[in-house]
Amino acid sequence: MYAKEIIEVLKKAGASEGDFIRVMLRDGCVREGILMPRSEFGNEKCLVIKLKNGYNIGISAKKIKSVEVIEKRKKKDTIPQRKPSKTKGGKKPKVVILHTGGTIASRVDYETGGVKALFSPEELLDLFPEMEKYALIDSKLIANALSENLRFGHYNKMIDAIEKEIKKGVDGIILTHGTDTMAYTAAAIAFAFENLPVPVILVGAQRSSDRPSSDAAMNLISALQFITTTDFCDVGICMHATTSDDYCHILPACKTRKMHTSARYAFQAINAKPYAKVWWKEERVEFLQDDYVRKSDVKGKLVVRKFREDIKVGLLKAHPHLMPEEVLAYQGFDGMVIEGTGLGHIGIESFDELSKENEEVMKALKKVIESGTIVVMTSQCLYGRVNMNVYSTGRKLLKMGVLGNLTDMLPEVAFVKLAWLLSNFKKDEIPKLWHTNLRGEISDRTLE
Amino acid sequence: MYAKEIIEVLKKAGASEGDFIRVMLRDGCVREGILMPRSEFGNEKCLVIKLKNGYNIGISAKKIKSVEVIEKRKKKDTIPQRKPSKTKGGKKPKVVILHTGGTIASRVDYETGGVKALFSPEELLDLFPEMEKYALIDSKLIANALSENLRFGHYNKMIDAIEKEIKKGVDGIILTHGTDTMAYTAAAIAFAFENLPVPVILVGAQRSSDRPSSDAAMNLISALQFITTTDFCDVGICMHATTSDDYCHILPACKTRKMHTSARYAFQAINAKPYAKVWWKEERVEFLQDDYVRKSDVKGKLVVRKFREDIKVGLLKAHPHLMPEEVLAYQGFDGMVIEGTGLGHIGIESFDELSKENEEVMKALKKVIESGTIVVMTSQCLYGRVNMNVYSTGRKLLKMGVLGNLTDMLPEVAFVKLAWLLSNFKKDEIPKLWHTNLRGEISDRTLE
Repeated sequence: MYAKEIIEVLKKAGASEGDFIRVMLRDGCVREGILMPRSEFGNEKCLVIKLKNGYNIGISAKKIKSVEVIEKRKKKDTIPQRKPSKTKGGKKPKVVILHTGGTIASRVDYETGGVKALFSPEELLDLFPEMEKYALIDSKLIANALSENLRFGHYNKMIDAIEKEIKKGVDGIILTHGTDTMAYTAAAIAFAFENLPVPVILVGAQRSSDRPSSDAAMNLISALQFITTTDFCDVGICMHATTSDDYCHILPACKTRKMHTSARYAFQAINAKPYAKVWWKEERVEFLQDDYVRKSDVKGKLVVRKFREDIKVGLLKAHPHLMPEEVLAYQGFDGMVIEGTGLGHIGIESFDELSKENEEVMKALKKVIESGTIVVMTSQCLYGRVNMNVYSTGRKLLKMGVLGNLTDMLPEVAFVKLAWLLSNFKKDEIPKLWHTNLRGEISDRTLE
Repeated sequence: MYAKEIIEVLKKAGASEGDFIRVMLRDGCVREGILMPRSEFGNEKCLVIKLKNGYNIGISAKKIKSVEVIEKRKKKDTIPQRKPSKTKGGKKPKVVILHTGGTIASRVDYETGGVKALFSPEELLDLFPEMEKYALIDSKLIANALSENLRFGHYNKMIDAIEKEIKKGVDGIILTHGTDTMAYTAAAIAFAFENLPVPVILVGAQRSSDRPSSDAAMNLISALQFITTTDFCDVGICMHATTSDDYCHILPACKTRKMHTSARYAFQAINAKPYAKVWWKEERVEFLQDDYVRKSDVKGKLVVRKFREDIKVGLLKAHPHLMPEEVLAYQGFDGMVIEGTGLGHIGIESFDELSKENEEVMKALKKVIESGTIVVMTSQCLYGRVNMNVYSTGRKLLKMGVLGNLTDMLPEVAFVKLAWLLSNFKKDEIPKLWHTNLRGEISDRTLE
């Protein structure tokens, strides 16, 4: 809630949240924008409005002379259809926004002081009406989830929704998503579609859409600009690239990680380069590499392969003093990803009295493999390539049938790929497919 | 093995590995250095010698005219005592090198093509005789381990050895270590000692000491320069900072991670800055921050707290589609670190039919907590701070008693800290100690 003095001036003007208002300041200046609820942890004596450029500003109560309502809050069916500035063969491209929840769809919950998913897709469109400049926007709600709670069944729901939109003939798809597991989902969508005929860009926000520092507008609009002005035809992630509001990165679906809990530039390409920078204010896309799938490259028939919801895949992060129970938990699982140390190791060798327990870890791992679980190796270093040829622990793991040698897959992507392979292929096909680069998840060369 | 033509020229000279030799080239040039075994994956027709500056070069067989032995391989007892260039109150500082194995103590094993721990401490000193320029060097073998196989008992062995050397009056300690788990060990040593009166610097190598591109010499010599020329009095890590051989970083023990499987600059400070750059060729230390423990700051009595070897601490990395079994594995453990998604989450909420299994994950986590396990939260983002106030999953975790809110501890450091706290303090003391910055493991401010 705003402070009394602000509530009063708003009451006098008959202004309510979502209205487009004009704020007259004591110094003679005028500010116009959409009236926002009080921002999270924000000063209650500070009125927040969303400017036309998508950004929010706070105005101190002391500086406000009066407020005037220019336009009452727009409902979806009354959004004015602006003239398109970008057209495609004379027609505006069609882009659908599929919503799955997360911070981008959230606003502050004044009861708990926390953030709750509250915006409907229509409300989000209302918040960023400038999106309609670039495309005919349609919007669907798939889920209203905090992304940490998503399971394979939700991946399938998203895959179904994307397939449906492709068949309806959209030119591009934006998938809004919570940032916690957005990189996992990006990989899942990438694996699911072979010969994807339209771009699918995942967009999230690190700060909820009603906060002054929200990155929602810039990320969404950059994704739209990228979809409607390039020939890119793959799955990507569009998020803030820097601490400033200058440009977004378009990041590869199978080579990206959330690398900061709260910063807006949290998403980083690992062992790969971003595809492009989108300078949203200048409406300019700058490609950073030539190695991407173009619309003209996609010739085959669309193949869709989903996830089996009863597949069990575990992820074990190796650490010193590992206990056999931690490994045995995966006995009977379909798959298990080890996030090993260094080049792809786990403490399975005993070399003195103090390391005897490592023999039990070794036995546990053997039991897991004997139970039919497919075990793959990645590295907790994140950067660089697994190489199990170099040291004795690695060579033992190779001999036991652990897959992943010489790959540079992120542990999170390996988790998704393993679940997807187990869902769609026979067990004896997996070793070859594991070491084959299917969706950009393995690089040809190691970046240093 | 070298190619026949090289073996012949060496045989003629009576030269064997480790001898200091002079190589006469066909173009009239002369190269001098220690004869090395053939480098890993190196060209068999390329003779490798270690130059006086610590670096290895390869000389093509075609270019070699003849070889001459200048000095047969030095054994430890015959190392010439060079005049010290750096002195401390007229005396050379005493530095002990405690060896625990790893790549820095390794050389290529021609049987397997891999790398094996083979160098004794004496041999390592022979490889880098220039170390004696900076200090009176003593050297002890604690273990000959690949660091992925280390357990808490080995931490105690290192702690005992360090305590013994402190009591003997050394001026500084270098701990050579495998890089896989060096960052875990650095944290363990940091927690173990309160009022540490001398610097302890961990040094590793990403490429074995007999390889032309080995970083062993530069890392060791930089650590020595840092110890003998500064007032730093804490635990640190000294490793290559860049892709070039220009400088090493001295990194904080509780804020560092191995971030690349093979690159020499793999070690990076996370949520913190390195303490200093060591420009080894210029013999110059450049401090990057003022916030470090100096010798004059250490006033209290040395307190040593070791690890209980029967402590069980697990590390669970959260991921989508988590199974309850993965959580239940930690029932009865003393401690459990969750490497959550985003601000510190794990999928425990059911919001539709597809997410019902999350309720089982929630029940499993409750069972673990009810079994007496102390559960702490960190983030797989690595950068940034945990904040469980913002979203409903976080608030539920807080209510269940999960510790770690508002901390920015690395998961690996959290693992070590939890094991150490459980080894030395009562259970009801842990929540307060968990949220207290004891050894630089929690930052005051979040770096962006």
